[in-house]
Parts: sequence; structure tokens; C-alpha cells
Amino acid sequence: MSYKLKKNFKMFALQSNQDLAGEMAQILGCELGRCTSTQFSDGEIQIHIEESVRGCEVFLIQSASDPSNEHIMELLIMIDALKRASAKMINIVMPYFSYARQDRKARSREPITARLIANLLETAGATRILTVDFHSPQTQGFFDIPVDHLTGIPIIADYFKKKELEDLVIVAPHNGGVVRARKIANYLNVPLALIDRRRPEHDETEIMHIIGTIEGKNVIIVDDLIDTGGTITTGAHALIENGAKAVYACCTHPVLSGPAIRRIESSAIKELVVTNTIKLSEEKRIGKITALSVAPLLVEAIDRIHNQKAVSPLFE
Amino acid sequence: MSYKLKKNFKMFALQSNQDLAGEMAQILGCELGRCTSTQFSDGEIQIHIEESVRGCEVFLIQSASDPSNEHIMELLIMIDALKRASAKMINIVMPYFSYARQDRKARSREPITARLIANLLETAGATRILTVDFHSPQTQGFFDIPVDHLTGIPIIADYFKKKELEDLVIVAPHNGGVVRARKIANYLNVPLALIDRRRPEHDETEIMHIIGTIEGKNVIIVDDLIDTGGTITTGAHALIENGAKAVYACCTHPVLSGPAIRRIESSAIKELVVTNTIKLSEEKRIGKITALSVAPLLVEAIDRIHNQKAVSPLFE
Amino acid sequence: MSYKLKKNFKMFALQSNQDLAGEMAQILGCELGRCTSTQFSDGEIQIHIEESVRGCEVFLIQSASDPSNEHIMELLIMIDALKRASAKMINIVMPYFSYARQDRKARSREPITARLIANLLETAGATRILTVDFHSPQTQGFFDIPVDHLTGIPIIADYFKKKELEDLVIVAPHNGGVVRARKIANYLNVPLALIDRRRPEHDETEIMHIIGTIEGKNVIIVDDLIDTGGTITTGAHALIENGAKAVYACCTHPVLSGPAIRRIESSAIKELVVTNTIKLSEEKRIGKITALSVAPLLVEAIDRIHNQKAVSPLFE
Amino acid sequence: MSYKLKKNFKMFALQSNQDLAGEMAQILGCELGRCTSTQFSDGEIQIHIEESVRGCEVFLIQSASDPSNEHIMELLIMIDALKRASAKMINIVMPYFSYARQDRKARSREPITARLIANLLETAGATRILTVDFHSPQTQGFFDIPVDHLTGIPIIADYFKKKELEDLVIVAPHNGGVVRARKIANYLNVPLALIDRRRPEHDETEIMHIIGTIEGKNVIIVDDLIDTGGTITTGAHALIENGAKAVYACCTHPVLSGPAIRRIESSAIKELVVTNTIKLSEEKRIGKITALSVAPLLVEAIDRIHNQKAVSPLFE
Amino acid sequence: MSYKLKKNFKMFALQSNQDLAGEMAQILGCELGRCTSTQFSDGEIQIHIEESVRGCEVFLIQSASDPSNEHIMELLIMIDALKRASAKMINIVMPYFSYARQDRKARSREPITARLIANLLETAGATRILTVDFHSPQTQGFFDIPVDHLTGIPIIADYFKKKELEDLVIVAPHNGGVVRARKIANYLNVPLALIDRRRPEHDETEIMHIIGTIEGKNVIIVDDLIDTGGTITTGAHALIENGAKAVYACCTHPVLSGPAIRRIESSAIKELVVTNTIKLSEEKRIGKITALSVAPLLVEAIDRIHNQKAVSPLFE
Amino acid sequence: MSYKLKKNFKMFALQSNQDLAGEMAQILGCELGRCTSTQFSDGEIQIHIEESVRGCEVFLIQSASDPSNEHIMELLIMIDALKRASAKMINIVMPYFSYARQDRKARSREPITARLIANLLETAGATRILTVDFHSPQTQGFFDIPVDHLTGIPIIADYFKKKELEDLVIVAPHNGGVVRARKIANYLNVPLALIDRRRPEHDETEIMHIIGTIEGKNVIIVDDLIDTGGTITTGAHALIENGAKAVYACCTHPVLSGPAIRRIESSAIKELVVTNTIKLSEEKRIGKITALSVAPLLVEAIDRIHNQKAVSPLFE
Repeated sequence: MSYKLKKNFKMFALQSNQDLAGEMAQILGCELGRCTSTQFSDGEIQIHIEESVRGCEVFLIQSASDPSNEHIMELLIMIDALKRASAKMINIVMPYFSYARQDRKARSREPITARLIANLLETAGATRILTVDFHSPQTQGFFDIPVDHLTGIPIIADYFKKKELEDLVIVAPHNGGVVRARKIANYLNVPLALIDRRRPEHDETEIMHIIGTIEGKNVIIVDDLIDTGGTITTGAHALIENGAKAVYACCTHPVLSGPAIRRIESSAIKELVVTNTIKLSEEKRIGKITALSVAPLLVEAIDRIHNQKAVSPLFE
Repeated sequence: MSYKLKKNFKMFALQSNQDLAGEMAQILGCELGRCTSTQFSDGEIQIHIEESVRGCEVFLIQSASDPSNEHIMELLIMIDALKRASAKMINIVMPYFSYARQDRKARSREPITARLIANLLETAGATRILTVDFHSPQTQGFFDIPVDHLTGIPIIADYFKKKELEDLVIVAPHNGGVVRARKIANYLNVPLALIDRRRPEHDETEIMHIIGTIEGKNVIIVDDLIDTGGTITTGAHALIENGAKAVYACCTHPVLSGPAIRRIESSAIKELVVTNTIKLSEEKRIGKITALSVAPLLVEAIDRIHNQKAVSPLFE
Repeated sequence: MSYKLKKNFKMFALQSNQDLAGEMAQILGCELGRCTSTQFSDGEIQIHIEESVRGCEVFLIQSASDPSNEHIMELLIMIDALKRASAKMINIVMPYFSYARQDRKARSREPITARLIANLLETAGATRILTVDFHSPQTQGFFDIPVDHLTGIPIIADYFKKKELEDLVIVAPHNGGVVRARKIANYLNVPLALIDRRRPEHDETEIMHIIGTIEGKNVIIVDDLIDTGGTITTGAHALIENGAKAVYACCTHPVLSGPAIRRIESSAIKELVVTNTIKLSEEKRIGKITALSVAPLLVEAIDRIHNQKAVSPLFE
Repeated sequence: MSYKLKKNFKMFALQSNQDLAGEMAQILGCELGRCTSTQFSDGEIQIHIEESVRGCEVFLIQSASDPSNEHIMELLIMIDALKRASAKMINIVMPYFSYARQDRKARSREPITARLIANLLETAGATRILTVDFHSPQTQGFFDIPVDHLTGIPIIADYFKKKELEDLVIVAPHNGGVVRARKIANYLNVPLALIDRRRPEHDETEIMHIIGTIEGKNVIIVDDLIDTGGTITTGAHALIENGAKAVYACCTHPVLSGPAIRRIESSAIKELVVTNTIKLSEEKRIGKITALSVAPLLVEAIDRIHNQKAVSPLFE
Repeated sequence: MSYKLKKNFKMFALQSNQDLAGEMAQILGCELGRCTSTQFSDGEIQIHIEESVRGCEVFLIQSASDPSNEHIMELLIMIDALKRASAKMINIVMPYFSYARQDRKARSREPITARLIANLLETAGATRILTVDFHSPQTQGFFDIPVDHLTGIPIIADYFKKKELEDLVIVAPHNGGVVRARKIANYLNVPLALIDRRRPEHDETEIMHIIGTIEGKNVIIVDDLIDTGGTITTGAHALIENGAKAVYACCTHPVLSGPAIRRIESSAIKELVVTNTIKLSEEKRIGKITALSVAPLLVEAIDRIHNQKAVSPLFE
Repeated sequence: MSYKLKKNFKMFALQSNQDLAGEMAQILGCELGRCTSTQFSDGEIQIHIEESVRGCEVFLIQSASDPSNEHIMELLIMIDALKRASAKMINIVMPYFSYARQDRKARSREPITARLIANLLETAGATRILTVDFHSPQTQGFFDIPVDHLTGIPIIADYFKKKELEDLVIVAPHNGGVVRARKIANYLNVPLALIDRRRPEHDETEIMHIIGTIEGKNVIIVDDLIDTGGTITTGAHALIENGAKAVYACCTHPVLSGPAIRRIESSAIKELVVTNTIKLSEEKRIGKITALSVAPLLVEAIDRIHNQKAVSPLFE
């Protein structure tokens, strides 16, 4: 398939995920716009856009992955530069939107950082967000500008479909993950189970209780992101203990911070399927992890946005 | 207990829930402010505040219950009147925030009406929202002004505690309700089950599957609101069919529209426990429904806001 | 005459005045866009736009007629949906702008609801207003977005011209209506009279005094809207009592609420000429009322806006 | 009567009407705040506030009288200085709000300058407007901040009451002035007449027609402001020609620009009663003009705003 | 060279610098748009745009030169008229941005008027600023809208290059002017000197001290603007006293207010080179002053903005 | 001296400069508010305020020093938390404002990051900025909220006064530093010199030229901040080469990144005097560097802001 881009189309990528950006540019058949983003020894970022963006529809690719604050600030500064350079539209392609778990006040006197980030992006001058699998779908409502919210679930589901695993059950690894698990269970047309977690008293150990039937089954634990890997690996352990045949896991965003890789390596998880919304550094590319690409999905969405065709078919 | 109110404290109530407002005023030991809100024969609302609010900390009580659009417009118009009359603070006490289920785009080209309402309230001039049990906690993040988000769950849990039901299980009536069910299960220290619902093909009948153990148990189905009563009554039926001993239900917001009362009357539900965030009209006050009052909770919160004490103890 | 519409032109109509919208679509030679607007049994409105509006110049037709609050909320929700669906321009075609009489504080501590509505529309995302005969021309200044303010007076004046009534006098039915009456008097080149009304003491009956010569004349009472019909029918009575030969009446917006139809039927008014900015329900289509269409005027304006030609010729 | 001012009360006056400000300070029993406003030889204004306003409730007096643009810019600059100097409230006391006649688009492609001025004041940092007799009451709705809109009509009416003129009629000098004339007629309990003006063809001479009975009567022509004096003096001439016994005139705002004084001197007007919202320069203080002071009215309003008492009694 | 303008290009000029605007229109090969800007005898400005600007990319030329406040208000009112008349883009061409020296608080309780003006322009509806040589480059940051900031220095430098003066030194006339002086020194590849000024005690006479070598040299004093001429003429005097061979001066903006012309005439300055960002009135066109045109520079920038080509080559 | 704080005073400190915050708390005689700021292994910051701030005047201390982006994000998140926790005022005490050198577009298509940061702070909810020595004073104008802009120059000047160095000259290390150098020269009543720098061609070595007399003198190079130390150390070298007796240096903000410490150690600089707006890590506390405290200055300002006394005496 080939894409038709208008003359005023420009795509730029910042530091977070140049591999994904390169793949997208290749599929689109375009060059990435030239800009330099330098970090000085005092930590300040200096950005210079090296070609005219006057009147352009700019698509700017940046995941807010670790180091998240650096990537967010780099993004905001680039948006400011684009705005002052008279770009016509500043479409932010943010495959991974960090701080998404801070989307409500869990306790008194906490921030709602996801809403803050939305406000900062709009203040800087963003005119659209294109993203994949927010932690909660309500995050769309944190924006006043249009959001095109894609999902990586079909990509992951298709991968598992091809594996033709028998006796499959989808497992939500915690109480908040049932709706997401239901979605992939629908794709694969298999039953659902839930790991119900609670902490009897503050500071006591968490108790896991498996609700639903998983004995003798192949199970896939599904989440939107895996951070330190605690939830997914303790969940896998409990499932095996309770008689599961084999445990697979999947998520859209492989945050995989701190002990995550070590935990996964030594866990009962047979295979972890993720996407490349976040770049996996060399040491995270272990044998158990399979990374699928969202580049074709993002490119298709960009083409539709750029050529003003409905993006909705991508949601179905 | 008696409350100390400063001279510039004023509390007003609009049309939606005068009973609750009256109860609150009685507990606080104050009079409701005088204002007239008239609906003309062409449907326009005219508001006149009949006493000075200059420099006042106003608390304005209005649930966005049915007729929701009328109540929202009445609220916005009153806020405009208060702002132009030089009120110092306009605290909206909104026990029930309607349109809360429209908090994300479930399909392409849908509005996010909950965010829209938040924007409208801020545009009109609201300076704070005090509410009870949003449909999703993320709705807090739709506001830039402070939100004091109370919960009616302890009130309901306490009621059930006193009933001393044995062999109790909390049931989430649909996949999105597990986190809420977990909360009340924690209060009561009982196990959890889930009614997993899916629709194999578009337009086919929904299939319910109970995950977890409910046979021979007393169960309480918990939700944030009950609208037409379909989910809760079909759920109750399935639970009984699967061997539950008795089925109770509870929710914070008794929307109870359309066939709800009829369905509940003829359902397997033994008792439905609700709160008075929404006023129950005479014909909805059936024997099966027990309504608990959130007035003491709201009054306590108002006192703490007014006297600048922490509201957080009310969340614990 | 035929109209040329660009590919990105879309026209939608909400619930208030589908007849007018249909007539406009027919004149323009286009289909109305597909969208569903459902009101649930709890009073909430759910909107779904059923075709892509990405990059489109949308014209959205909605009169804020009775039930005014429902129609305003439906409009705001649709605007939110259009904005989030990436419409390029959201032009609101609002033939009747309700709450227009609440355009100032007549007493202390009243709202200025017309300004509030303007703010709400802008907050939701409207980018232009196209309307007919605001109650006061100052209402244009309540908006920061462009307003194209058309007038139905020439349509009405032309109708009366063709009647070739002799000895004609235009009458302002109250002190605030003289400027409007002067305009139509200019069109018809006839003299002016005024019904001067005052209320000697609060709560006493209003006293009418006719200023100007109407004895033996055909008179036309002119107003922007007729609501409950009190002013126009008591005025007609006074004119007949003071020797008028025959009394006609006209207005742009036939609000006609409450006792209006009954009053007009039993009044001295021979014929009431209105436009279709507000849809007349079946029971309001009485013999005395003649309704002229503003559809050709609105269509001409839409075409000029869409094709970026001056709208000003329509004002002359 | 004596006024109690809190410690953080400060009143400043800019260049337009130091006499009125001085009178107000004297009544209030306070000193005007010290600030210098210098106009350099290149026309730029430099402002320096010479005492701390940190945390103060500032009342800033400035009429937007001729030279209107200079006075508006001086006002905006002073507001900026107050905002940056951490004033708590910036209450603008604007006895005369210029550009008030540009409150609608009379023709295509005109500005609505009154709304623009409202926006500029809010942008600069004004938090309240206190003014006297807007040209149209709708101008209140151009502001989102509170407006306290006083009227000079009772002051003028009281003056005429004391004159005990017999056979009195109030005359509106043009079609747009009937509502205002009705108000003063109510105060004095006398009848109303109207000078109906029209211009048969563009560029032809205006034709005046008196509607109502004025023969043998003492008449008072009433307007909100008198600018070049054309309307009022041609009106006076017409009234005398049609048999009026004597013609008085009154207005709140004595703009009196260009030929106004000459025209009034040589006109049929016996006495012109105005207020001091605009300072009368020496050459305008002719014998025919009586200027009444609005200082007590403004001071009473300021006291009520400052001490958070209802301002509404001043409107009755 | 000939320019290609799209159909929706319109250029308007207000009162401040019709000569420059005329020259620009001639170079561009277009007519200036028709609009009337009238100042009434009471000082209010009334604007009427006499041709359609619907959907147009408007370039509006106005220097904020003396009378600065009048020109700023005229500009704001015109922007409001353009916005309400549905112009698509409102590009402000402001060759001279006044109040630019008020770009910081030099003392407590001063305004930052340059920022205020930026806010006012954005509030009115400006979508871009095109200007020449701000007093400080930071003024760009006062705007959220794009600013195209041109410089007149190359035009002036080229003029001096052609004079082939020998032994040339560039002199900064005060401590804040060194960076600017360095720029022109770079262009001409000559050394730099500085007139160091200080005031030992408040109210004492300023002491000048020349730092750097100027004896026997041709010197050019450079500044961004010359207002009353004090700095430049006392500087010239000091340079001659200290042995300079001849003194030239230059600046972009010939404000030349108050005693400026007299001072320059009687000063040691041999020639003063300026540009026409500000119109020189007849009495200012003295023999010593050479005015160079920025019209070609502005036209080139407008063409590049209009046709979405990079403006950056004009900065090099 | 002792400070009186009202009950609603709270001071918090984030991660950047706990030493300075501690010193300030000690001087003020208060405790720092309790809050936890945790950085997770994925780089996200989580903040929890551990005591009520409802209705409080909060002073929040955070320098934007290295790692600048982390500190800015931490600050924005904390502001969001404070705003949502109903703090009454959120005063940002930012002793060092980073990105201050990016205060203009030096080239096309660069951001103006200092303005961006100002916008982000206002968007998050900051209500005041208290800072020390912006890179350019114009940065004040990037804010719409009040800025209290203190200077560390008197602290540094006093230190040098006490040293009683003879034959002293102040040197600006580059062309943009003359105004700042002039200020300290005024304090010390000594002459000024300038290191004039230029780069003949792009990429060629910079040429330094000393303007003014420094031979045989003690010189103090003064700048607002020292980053990598290149400018100050090459300047010191040039001064010694040109015969300076001894070279001192000073700046407010010791950024001292990358090779700075090494360069200073091996340079001709005898002593470098700085303040503690930025915390010096252990390895930066070398013998040549003297750090003076701004804590008493900041505390004095906070007290004046809190108690609504003029801050201006601190500027004199």
C-alpha cells in the first residue's frame, strides 16, 4: 500500500523512540523532518527546527517513556518551537502517555497528573493527540482538543489467535483490569477469570484470590502496561499454584522498569507479548518477550487524519 | 453536634432535591437563602436571588437528576446570577452528577458529555464541586477547580453490617463494577463475585456468566447507580438461578427511570438500599427500597470546607 | 438558482425544527448529515454522529425553542461531539435564540442568561453563529466569535406590501419596540404610533396610552417575538377601542406559549404574520396565523458563508 | 454620615476627572492614593504607583471621556501596574463608559467596540466595574466580571421635581430613547411624547414627527448623553415649533463635543441639566447648564461594595 | 521581481503611516483594502471596512507611533471589526511597536506595558505580528501568537558600507546598547566603543565615560530608536570632546519627539540615518536626516508569510 | 528579628534545594510542611501532601537547577496537588529560574522556553513567583501573575566591599553583561570595563577584545550565572594577559555544569563569589568558591508578601 501525502505534511521525531519513528517514516515513504534537540551539561534542552514548517501539518512523535519528565519537557519545548514557527497543525503522536495511572485522586491531596499533562500540552500549543491505549478511557476527556485513541489489543489478540492455544482463559491480574480483559476475551472468544487482590489491613501482605476457572487451562494475563512486573509475576505464580497449565502475559506498553526484567525472567510466565509503543533497550530484549509493531496502525491513522478520512475503521 | 457558620455563609437550593436541602439546613442550623426560580410557559427559567450574596461563601445544592437538562441549565443560570451578584465563592453541592456515564468516547464521534458539563460549570463561574460517588473517579480530573469527592459506600456498608447477614458475598453486576464491589467487600470483610457479561455478536442477547462462588450465599449486588434497573434485575435473576440464597442490591444514586420500579418490584431482589442523593418521588417509595440519608455527610463536608478544615477524614 | 457546495460541507439538524431543516436541505440540494440523538428514560441525551465530519465545515441547525433547556443542552452536546470528531468549523444556525430577553440585569441579582448561553456555546466549541432577529441587537456583542445576524423584517414587510392595505400605521406595542417598528415603517413608508405602558404602582394594573394617530387606520403591531400573547392582544384591544379600523400583528419568532393561541383566537387581531424560525405545532396552526419561511434567507447566508462571499447584501 | 473604611482600602484617580475624584475622597473622608501618570513627548504614558497596594481593595476612578483613547489606555496601563503590584481587587469606577454607542453592528463589517473595551479591561486585570447609565443596559452583559450599574436618573428627576413645573411632558428625542424617557416620566408621574425621526432616502434630510401631545406644555427632553447636541437642539426647535411652552433637556453624560455648546447656547433649550460623570471644562460651564453631582451616589456604592453590603437599595 | 498573491489576500492600512503602506502596495502590485476610520469630535474612532474580508488573509499595517495611544486603539478596534467580519487570518504589520521600552519593571509598582499591549492585541483577535527591531528581543516572548521579527540593521549597515568611511568605530550610546552595536560592528567589521553612563546620586547629573578607542576615528552611534535625542546628542558631544573625527548616528525608529529635531540640528552629529518605520512629518525632514525604506523588506516578508515560504532568509 | 506568621501560612520545599529551604524555615521560625515526593523506577514522580493546605497561603520552594526538567515537572505536579487540595494562594519561590537564557528566538524556529515555563506555571495554578536575578529583566513580562523579582547583587557587592580591594574595576565578560556590571560598579563606586567578543566567521574562534582600562587593576568579572565556566575563565585569562593584577569573579547562580569546576580550579580566577540559589554539591565546594546565602533576603520577602507589606524596600 502506498500513501499520498500533501506538500505541507511533515513528520518529526524526538528522542524517545527513534526506531518506531524510523519504521513509520519508511512505511509512509517520507523522510523525518530535520531538527536538533541537544541537552546541555546543565540539563537544559535546546531545540532547533532545521527546516521551514510554516503552514505545515506537523505530526510529532514522542512517547513519554522513561525518562518521562525529560521526554515531556522536550515535547513541550518542541511544540512551542513549532507554534512560534507558524506550523498550521501540531499533531502529537504519543504512542505511550505516561502518568496515565495518576488519573484521579486516590487519596486526599494528590495531584491528577494525567490531567495536568493534558493541560500542559494544550497550553504549549498541541492541536491534536494520537495515542494508543490510555490507562483509562476517561483520559480522553482530560483534553479539549481532539484525541484519536487507538488500541493495540487487536494486534496482540491476532498474535495469540495464530498460536492456536487450546483451553484458553483470559485473566485480569487485578480488580481494575476486568473490562480490558473482557475485550481481548471477546476477540478470542474465550472465558474470563480474575485475580481478586486485597490487603486486609494497611501494611499487611496482599491476599490474592482467583475468581473463575483456570485449572488445567492455558491462561493469558492482560494489562495495559507492565511497570515493575510485580502484579503480573505474582499473578502468574498464583495461577500456576492454582493449577493453570501455562501462563502467557501481554500488555500494550512495556514500561518494564526496575526489577521487571529480572522478575519476568524468573517467573512462571512463558511468553510476554508487548508492542513497541515504548522502545525496548537492548538489555530488555530477552527471549521471553515478543514485541509487535504499532507502526502500521499509527501510519494508517496519520494518513487518515492528514487526508481527512474517518479514523473510525481503525477502532473496529 | 453544632456547627459554627461565619456571617458570610449562605446556602441555596434549586428545584431538584428540596427535601435533602431542607434536611441539610436543619442539621446545619441555618435557613436556606431566598431565591425564586420560575419556569415560564415557553420553558425559559428566570432566577432572582432575593437577598444579598455580596462577598458570601455560597453553597448551592442541586442534583442533576431527571429532568437532567432542566436541572443543569437552572444550575448554570443560578451560578451566573451569583457571579454577577458578587458572591465570593460559588461552591456547587451536586449530590448526583448526571451524564457521568458519558465520560469517554465509547464509539467514534460521540461526545464526552461529563467533561462538557465540567467545562460549562467552570465557564458559568463555579469555584468548587462537592459531590458523591462519580461514576468513574477519573471524572474528578475533568475539572480544573477543586473537587471534594465524597462516597456513600460507608453509609450503605454500615447499614448492611447492622443486618448481620451470614455467608455474605458482594457481587459486581458487570465487568466495570469490580473495583467498586471490592471496596464494599473490604468494608464488610467478605468475598467477591462477578457477573461477567458479553454479547457474542452485535444485536444478540447478552450472555451472563457468574465468576466466583455464590451458591447458598446471601449476595449483595452493588453499583454506583441504578437507571432502568435492567442490569441489576437480570443479575439478581441469574444469581438466584445459580443457587444464591437471597439477593440484596445497593447503589448510591437511585435514578430509577422508566421500567425500573416495575422491574425491581417483580425481581428476585429482596431489598434495595440507596441514598437520597436523588429525591425519590412518591411512586418510587416502594417497600423494597430503603433510602439512607447523605445529609449528615454533606453537612460535615460543607462545615469543613467553610471553616477550612481538612475534608480528608470523611474519606477514610 | 442552484448552489455549489464543496466536498467538506455538511449540514446537520437537531430536534427542534426538522421541517425548516428539511426545507433548507431541499433548497440547497443536499442531504442532512446522519446523526442520532436519543433521550433516555432518565432524561439524558445521547448523541452519535453517524458519518465522518473530519475536516468538515459543519452547519448545525437548532432553534432554542420550547423545550428551550433541552434544545440548548442537545446543541451543546452535539457541538462537543463535532469538536472531538475533528470538524473544521462548527457553524451554529440558530434561527431562534431563546433567553434573548434576559440580556441585562433588570433587577439586582438576576443573571444575564443570554450572555451565559453565548459563553456556553463558545466553550463547547462553536465557531460561528447564524441567527435571525435577536431580541436586542446588542446580543451580537455577547459573542467573541463571528455572528451573522439576519433579519426577517423584509420578508414580513414584503408580505404586507402585497396586501396593499390603505391608511396603514405601524404600532410599537410597548416602549421598547419603537426602533423595530420604525424599521418596518420605513420599509412600508407609513407613519408610526406607540402604545405607552406604565404601571403606576407595583402590582397595580398596567395603564396603556396610545401615542400617535391610529383612528380609522389599518394598523400593524410589530414585535420580535410573541410569547404568551398578552402584550399584543391587550394592545390590539386598546387600538380597536381607540378607533383603529383593523388590527394586524406580526413578529419573527412565534413562541406562542401558554394561553397565546387562545388569546389570539379571541382577540381583535385579524391576522398574525410570523416566520418559521420556530416550528408551529399542529394545534398552533390556526387560521389567523400566516407563517412565512426563512429557509431561503438562511440558505442564501449559508452559501455565502461556505463560499466566502459577503453576507452583507442580505442585510440590505 | 461617615464611612468606615478598612485598612486595605485605597482609592486612586487618573487624569480624566480629578474634580469628581476629589469630591468623592472628601465625602469618604480619605486621601486619594499617590501615583504619577506622565505623558512623554512621544505620547507614551508612564505610570508609577507611589505607595504599596499589596493586598489592597483598590477603587480606580477614570471616566473614558474625551480624549477617550488616551483615557482608556491610561486606565489599562494603570490596571496592569496594580495587578503586578499585587492589588487584591481592582474595582474600576468608570462614571462614563465611552464607545457605549458602538454596542452592536449597525452595518456589516463594523466593530463592537463596547464589547472590545470590556474584553480589554478584563484582560488587563479589572475585577469589577462600577458605572453610571450605560447607553444600553445590555452593555452589562459584555462583561464576565461583576458590574454595578448605577443610574443618575433619580438625581436629575429630583432636581426637576423641586422646580415644580406644571403641565409637564417627558419627550424622547429619538425612537431609541422611549424606554429611558418612560423611566423618568414614571419618577415624575407625567405623560410621554416621542420625536419620531426618519430619513426617507439615504442622504436626504431627516424628517422629525412628534408623536404625543406637547402643545402648551413644559417639556423635558431626556437622553443618556449629549454629544454634538444636534439631536437635542433640533428636537427642541421642533417642539417649540409645534407649540411647546418651554423646553428643558437633561442627560447623565455631558459629552458636549464640537459644536455642542454653541448649538445649545443658540437653541430653544431653557435649561440643560447634566451630571458630573464627565468633567465640564471651563468653556463649557455656560449659564444654561446645571451640573448635578454623582459623587454621593458613587461614594455610597463604593462603601457598600467595600463593606459587602447590598448595592441594590441604590437602584430603587 | 513580481509577487503572486492569492485571491484571499487583503492588505489594509490605518492612519499612522500611509506613505509606507502605499509604497508597500506598489511593490506588491496590489491595492490597499478600502476602510474608513473616522474620529468623531468626542474623540471616539469609528471604523467601517468597506469590502468583504470573509475568509481572507488580512495584513493590517499600523505603526504605534505618536499619537501612540490613538494608533493602538484604532488598531484594536480594526482587529475587532476584522474578526467579526470573519477574516481568516489577521496579521498585524507593526513596523514600530511603541511602549517597547516598558518591557520590565524598572521600579516597584510599574506596569509592563509592552506585555500589556501584546495581551490586548491577542485579546482583540490578532493572529500574527510582523515587526521590525523590538527594543529588546525578549519582547517576542510577550506574545503567544507567532511573531516575525525583522531587523532594519542590514539596511542601515549597507548604507554606511557604501559611504566607505575610514577608521570607523561603532559606539553604543549607553550601557544597554552594546549587543546591538556589536551586531552592526560585525556587519561592517569594525571595532566597538561604549559610552558608559552613570548617575552618582539620585538627581545629580549623569556622568559619561567613553570606554574604548575613538580618538581620531569616524564613529557611528547606533540605537534602536531616538526619542527626544538627549542620549544621542550628549553622546555625540562627548565623542567629539574626546577627539572623534566625525560623528554619525543611526537608528531604526525615528521617534524624534519634543526637542529632538532642534537638538540634532544643533548637535555634533553629521548625519543621522533612520528608516521609515515611523513616518517623518514635514518639519522633521531636515537635511541631516537620511531615511531608508523598510518597504521592500516588509513586502518580502509578507509574501513569504502569505505563500508559506520560510521567512528566515530575511534574518540572515 | 522575629517573624509573625498567620495560621494559614505554610511553606513546602521540593527536592532541589533542601538546604536553603531548611535555612529559611529556621530563620522564619517555622517547620516545613510535610509532603512526600517519590520518583518511581519508571521515572514518574508521585507527590502526596501530608497535611491539610485548605485555605492556606502556601510558599513552595524549588530551584529549577539541574536536573532542570525533573525539577520543573516536580514543581508543576506539586502545584496541581496544591490547587486540587484547595490552597488559597500558591506562591512559587524559585531562587533559580532555569531556561532563562532561552528568552527570545536567537534564530528562526527556536522556542522561547522561558515564556513556555511561565505559561506552564500559570496553567498548573501558580499565583505568584518570587525569584532572584532573572537572566533578563524582561522575563518578568512573561508572566501575567505578579512577580517579586529580588536581586542578589547587593549581597555580593557587600561582600566585596568588606574585602576593601584597591584599584578595583568591574568587568562585563561579554557584550550582553554591561548593564548588570554597571549596577555592581555603582554599588562599589568603581569604573567599568568590557570584554568585547566576536566571531569573525561562523565556526572560527571567538576573538576577545578588552574595552576599558584594566592594567594593574584588581578586577571583578560579574555575570548572572556561570554554567560551563568557559566565558568567565577565558575572560579571566585575557584580563591577566592584558595586565590585570588579580581577577575575581561573581555570579548569583552557580550552575557550574560539566567542565566548570575543573576550568575554574585551573583558571586565573582568585576567588569566585556566588549565592546559594542553587545548591552546591559536595564536589563543587572547592576552596576558590565562596557561597553567600540568599535565605535572609527570601525570608524577608516572604514575610512582606504574607503580611502584605511593601516588598519594594528589598529592591533598594
